[in-house]
Amino acid sequence: MTTKKKLVTPRTLKGFRDLLPGEALAKKNMISKLQEVFESFGFGPIETPHLEYTDVLINETEGEIGKQLYRFEDNGGRDVCLRFDLTVPFARYAVQHKNELGMPFKRYAIGTNFRGENPQLGRYREFMQCDFDIIGVDSGSADAEIVQVIKAALLTMGVKNFTIRINNRKIMNGIAEHYGLVECVPEILRIIDKIDKIGEEKVRSSLLEELSLSSEQVDIFMEFVSLSGGKSCQEIFSIAEKYENLNEATKKGFQELRELAAILDGLEWQDCSYKIDFAIARGLGYYTGIIYETILNDFPEIGSICSGGRYDNLTQNFSKEPAPGVGASVGIDRLMAALQEMKLITMRETPARVLVTQMDKELCAYSHRVASEFRASDIPTEVYPAAAKLKKQFQYADRKGHEFIVLIGEDEAKANKITVKNLKTAEQETLTIEEAVKLTLLH
Amino acid sequence: MTTKKKLVTPRTLKGFRDLLPGEALAKKNMISKLQEVFESFGFGPIETPHLEYTDVLINETEGEIGKQLYRFEDNGGRDVCLRFDLTVPFARYAVQHKNELGMPFKRYAIGTNFRGENPQLGRYREFMQCDFDIIGVDSGSADAEIVQVIKAALLTMGVKNFTIRINNRKIMNGIAEHYGLVECVPEILRIIDKIDKIGEEKVRSSLLEELSLSSEQVDIFMEFVSLSGGKSCQEIFSIAEKYENLNEATKKGFQELRELAAILDGLEWQDCSYKIDFAIARGLGYYTGIIYETILNDFPEIGSICSGGRYDNLTQNFSKEPAPGVGASVGIDRLMAALQEMKLITMRETPARVLVTQMDKELCAYSHRVASEFRASDIPTEVYPAAAKLKKQFQYADRKGHEFIVLIGEDEAKANKITVKNLKTAEQETLTIEEAVKLTLLH
Repeated sequence: MTTKKKLVTPRTLKGFRDLLPGEALAKKNMISKLQEVFESFGFGPIETPHLEYTDVLINETEGEIGKQLYRFEDNGGRDVCLRFDLTVPFARYAVQHKNELGMPFKRYAIGTNFRGENPQLGRYREFMQCDFDIIGVDSGSADAEIVQVIKAALLTMGVKNFTIRINNRKIMNGIAEHYGLVECVPEILRIIDKIDKIGEEKVRSSLLEELSLSSEQVDIFMEFVSLSGGKSCQEIFSIAEKYENLNEATKKGFQELRELAAILDGLEWQDCSYKIDFAIARGLGYYTGIIYETILNDFPEIGSICSGGRYDNLTQNFSKEPAPGVGASVGIDRLMAALQEMKLITMRETPARVLVTQMDKELCAYSHRVASEFRASDIPTEVYPAAAKLKKQFQYADRKGHEFIVLIGEDEAKANKITVKNLKTAEQETLTIEEAVKLTLLH
Repeated sequence: MTTKKKLVTPRTLKGFRDLLPGEALAKKNMISKLQEVFESFGFGPIETPHLEYTDVLINETEGEIGKQLYRFEDNGGRDVCLRFDLTVPFARYAVQHKNELGMPFKRYAIGTNFRGENPQLGRYREFMQCDFDIIGVDSGSADAEIVQVIKAALLTMGVKNFTIRINNRKIMNGIAEHYGLVECVPEILRIIDKIDKIGEEKVRSSLLEELSLSSEQVDIFMEFVSLSGGKSCQEIFSIAEKYENLNEATKKGFQELRELAAILDGLEWQDCSYKIDFAIARGLGYYTGIIYETILNDFPEIGSICSGGRYDNLTQNFSKEPAPGVGASVGIDRLMAALQEMKLITMRETPARVLVTQMDKELCAYSHRVASEFRASDIPTEVYPAAAKLKKQFQYADRKGHEFIVLIGEDEAKANKITVKNLKTAEQETLTIEEAVKLTLLH
């Protein structure tokens, strides 16, 4: 080429990032495990586009999300927008494909969303979410299934010490109704939702100052919110009677919690992986019943890694037919950060366990044949991609994290053998390919 | 709610689409298999953002792709663009993370791209690509690995009857150079690339008319292009000597092909899954050596489902250091269409094999416990999400494609048993949970 080109500086946008091989492999493995768990419960995947008509994704009157949108006019003059969550597209999907899907309908979706927020530690403008929902039913059985999925997902990833906190919006609504504060419920929930972050005292003062509740009204909510702390379900049910009998809403709320607890207790879980906790509120407006949050007991400061709840009307922007359902969402990035913190993820730069070296170009075909024999026994095996100095190939294995290195000289090739070196123990042996495969499988 | 809302019509953008559960599950399974194959060869995943600075993705002087871009100004005033392939972002990534990655470097990437082309059958504005590359080396060993990966990927998916067509750009370049036509090479390749679609005669007339080559010049290219048809590698190498000895370029081209064939033949493949074919040209400008296309012998009209080649300078827009490499790309959508056509994909609406029914709300806990026992033996099992009429639950299983249905009445629950019905054979038996799990595992 004769024209002199100006080089472009390689860079990503603010709030966007690349995943290096170790991170990307760990994330992919995490997602595979989640998929397996969802599918074991009969949730199948669906896909919706990353880009949608803006009016499908937002109601122009809504403020907060609107400002964060990646919204533009496409070449055909359409007002389009990158999705900011998986929930709104799912609502559209459920209405648009109603006849093909039938009800009830269960699905999971794992996908990338976009929000132009100010990036913070662990928060990106492009982020991955993983949602699972059961729609078309309003049952304790569905609520209980969501809890089981959360538990199974965490156990599969090696997380043992966690608490699924469960509440029911109907109770708080009923209490507010009883004291003539129905209109304030969204604000009350928004403030109570911060309790883990800012503490009881600040919640109390926010309720007093921001909402101008009376000190007695605040007491009522704070008493309720702190009622469940450290108590078993049965204890909570027995001391909470005064709330339960307040009105229809609280009655229904407690009834749903009792039903859920009965199903979960029937599973004979020998642990206390779930508890009823009146202090969780969830920020989102569309929840109308049972709500969930999941806390890692050793890392509560990370916040909830899987949250969700029951809603009455997911699809109200698209259809007059109600679509009740229940679902939850795993924060992929947050969960990965937590797993790293807990040393439950080993970052490896390569999925291969074995590196077959190449000292001599003439023996290349033999190297590839050896590797293919390892692969035939399900051992991921890489051939160093060119003949090179052995030192360089050892450095490569060292950096990437292979467990075994295979050395092939002329003598080995002639004898149809290979030398295998265990990179942890530094032991090495010259063996037939079959013997070497067996040895590797033992580790 | 008292405000009357206007409903939004649920719809997707032109050229964008949802995947229904059956399609999405089949696609996910296909991708899982591809990931497994890539990883078995030591290719690890990487991720780059969907959105990039426009100047990173395109050189303003390039016309064709530019018009198809989803390009806009973000809220921070940046000129940004949705990616249109995975190659350019990989080039940026390789330069930006050079120090962390080291060389050689192997990666795969599976991701969604966006191009505002006019949608055609099987062509969408949002589409998925799957690329795998080895960079930092220039070796026959790397070329041979790409061929092995293609073969392994197709075999894993049950495709047996395919041909990996291999050529080397250097030979065509060398011939053009010999006849003083170097400047025309990109155009010559672009026209020859259409040979499968438009036939030899039309290629000939295009070369004559569009490029104003002389009839003798056209004869030379057409003779070369049709030389390899129906011949084995050895035959081709022996009759192609007159091209081989034309100049340095053709010599190098043949030498690389010979080296590649030697490695592949060393693998003792008992089939003819690859062949040398001088009629493939590949449209893309950046290939400089060996190139590949993969044809399904029973569905040649689908076109190549996995193509790629060797390049000298992937990263030239970002760095002065050359980065040679070789890679290929699987057309996920096209491959899925082909697998459907060949009946190698069974579309299932649910990943679950077993549906546990619920006749009575009181037995809900037992239903969930039964399902969890099936899952403990790795049998994906779904609980119908609410107590309902049995007919409705049978219809659900029928629509979704469960293999077994579990019936639980009061008698069964009391006796700690269940009734299992095989939905294919209509056989049904009342068994202990353990027996039922064993029975299901046998099928």
